Amino acid sequence: MTDAPRFVKPVTRPADVGLAVTFDGPLALDCGRSLSPVTIAYMTYGTLNAARSNAVLVCHALTGDQFVASDHPITGKHGWWTSMVGPGKSIDTDRFFVICANVIGGCMGSTGPTEADPATGKPYGLDFPLITIRDMVRAQKMLVDHLGIEKLLAVAGGSMGGMQVLQWAASYPESVRAVVPIACAARHSAQNIAFHEVGRQAIMADPDWHGGRYAEAGAFPSKGLAVARMAAHITYVSEAALQRKFGRNLQNRAALSFQFAPDFQIESYLHHQGATFVDRFDANSYLYITRAMDYFDLAAEHGGVLADAFRDSPVRFCIISFSSDWLFPPGENKQIAHALNAVAAKVSFVEIKTDKGHDAFLLHEPEMFDTVRGFLNHAATDIA
Amino acid sequence: MTDAPRFVKPVTRPADVGLAVTFDGPLALDCGRSLSPVTIAYMTYGTLNAARSNAVLVCHALTGDQFVASDHPITGKHGWWTSMVGPGKSIDTDRFFVICANVIGGCMGSTGPTEADPATGKPYGLDFPLITIRDMVRAQKMLVDHLGIEKLLAVAGGSMGGMQVLQWAASYPESVRAVVPIACAARHSAQNIAFHEVGRQAIMADPDWHGGRYAEAGAFPSKGLAVARMAAHITYVSEAALQRKFGRNLQNRAALSFQFAPDFQIESYLHHQGATFVDRFDANSYLYITRAMDYFDLAAEHGGVLADAFRDSPVRFCIISFSSDWLFPPGENKQIAHALNAVAAKVSFVEIKTDKGHDAFLLHEPEMFDTVRGFLNHAATDIA
Repeated sequence: MTDAPRFVKPVTRPADVGLAVTFDGPLALDCGRSLSPVTIAYMTYGTLNAARSNAVLVCHALTGDQFVASDHPITGKHGWWTSMVGPGKSIDTDRFFVICANVIGGCMGSTGPTEADPATGKPYGLDFPLITIRDMVRAQKMLVDHLGIEKLLAVAGGSMGGMQVLQWAASYPESVRAVVPIACAARHSAQNIAFHEVGRQAIMADPDWHGGRYAEAGAFPSKGLAVARMAAHITYVSEAALQRKFGRNLQNRAALSFQFAPDFQIESYLHHQGATFVDRFDANSYLYITRAMDYFDLAAEHGGVLADAFRDSPVRFCIISFSSDWLFPPGENKQIAHALNAVAAKVSFVEIKTDKGHDAFLLHEPEMFDTVRGFLNHAATDIA
Repeated sequence: MTDAPRFVKPVTRPADVGLAVTFDGPLALDCGRSLSPVTIAYMTYGTLNAARSNAVLVCHALTGDQFVASDHPITGKHGWWTSMVGPGKSIDTDRFFVICANVIGGCMGSTGPTEADPATGKPYGLDFPLITIRDMVRAQKMLVDHLGIEKLLAVAGGSMGGMQVLQWAASYPESVRAVVPIACAARHSAQNIAFHEVGRQAIMADPDWHGGRYAEAGAFPSKGLAVARMAAHITYVSEAALQRKFGRNLQNRAALSFQFAPDFQIESYLHHQGATFVDRFDANSYLYITRAMDYFDLAAEHGGVLADAFRDSPVRFCIISFSSDWLFPPGENKQIAHALNAVAAKVSFVEIKTDKGHDAFLLHEPEMFDTVRGFLNHAATDIA
């Protein structure tokens, strides 16, 4: 018989989401609707200097959150970018004031589909408006203004975080000195939209999704969300790394079982990815945030010409890509550099050789650390 | 609100699966169990010559079937390889006697999980034994013997069909003159196992799967099977082709809808792939056949040395790969050629430049047609 993994634990809302600020709103959204009020949950690390000139905003990826450099309140694990952010690290919290906010649409305290709809008092569910990367950045700008920071030293992030970084440079070029978009693209590709749609269909096919009203039904579409996560996870790693780490190694057995239980380590690994994800993430947030990524097309906002998003920009760009990233291949990162070159913007482009795939931006990549450290030092020195 | 596709139509068993032969068995399987009886449903095209020397066995891929060159009894569509097989085609039915059998474990008339278990009279479901590529080939050998063919002129196939082709050469080198493995590998990679496991989890997560006993429950896990198909379909095409064909084009609308309905053509295309698949394919067969592919590791049957599978082989090999195939990349096909070279086997290797990805073997690829035509002509001339 099968030994299918059981994904039954509903997502646990954290007791402590760190700092939070609620604005009355309205926050006007690209879809034409608006949010009132808007809560933004965030964390800060380090100290804002008297000149308010040392603030670095970090933008998180699809399933990330504000706990960039401190333990996660649900999982208890270290922050998702402790390799990059902390005392003495490339984004040095002894020198910089680091801010990271949960995106709107998220599930870690910022306004999103799990929060109460003021019109009904019940969770928004699918009544939450579709949001875009630009909307996420608009909300972050409200937070940055609230913190009294006129100009960010830098905005940095990978994957969807990198999309927000690009949007910051395009939307608020006077409010940020330097940006570090990592492992991203200026528009989501057909293949990436396709993978996201598979994940969404897996969630919506789960009867425990209840049309998005699972909270009121006392249910949670754990199985569908786990399938979505498993499919997505494959795209975060490279074929070469999967082969190197797992190959055809068997899991706790000497021979094939001739059953549907996981025989291979890669299967157990995927099950683990699915099972741990549903403990910490919300299914509707997954729908909304993947859709925001699908909708991202920075050139489309500028008449189809990406370079026009950055014309006369005073911002310095440091674009980092990874050779084995097949979700956001180096070529897509390079297109951003080409667009910036076309308008004579200040841009450097680095392609780091690694077999770790898209997730390399979260991992130990010394060349990335050195590049970011040097770039931020340079940006900080300029204003010193 | 969402406009999720509805996958509700249970698979329709075809009225006419073509030819079929039932053997008493037992057919001993790699798992240690056996099948008795064993039915093999098949089709033939062309005429067997008096010397019985012009038979070409075509092996189908994961979701293929015996209708290689004639209309499909469920979908009414043309056979899946009419571009390759037919009068005057590369596998010329005016000259060759072409045989194609539904694999065991399949759902088009050969013994599989949808068929009645003689022990209970009910569909096997998950009581069907796990089968391997070698088991599929064992069953095909029974059919070929039954047809009175001592030696096949050739065995040809792509993807899982190519795995069977390699297995034929390894298991029955005296029974086949020439083989054409296309777009395949000698072992399934970690990434490919991962994608298959996602598909299986999607099926098994569907409550309509009923632990595999959906037929008795009057149900069918259409949603889960559709998700599995959509995820798999992405791997059959190249990123470049998806971008070329669909890009970010919208489906029947001028602007983004800001809803979860399919906005992009790529989404509608994927939904269509899922919806049409569940009309013609069985969910349990999908589990069994993907598992057979995962288990395929020809070197493992030979002490870990792939070359030993072909030592002293009299068989001629023509290996064809496609430059943009990321499911079975050219490098994996080339490894087979290297192993054959190591034992001085007769082998030619072709890498065809195309952006059509893995599915190129099913499409209009003139270089593939010419290669197969030339190779078969040569093989046929040798014995004339």
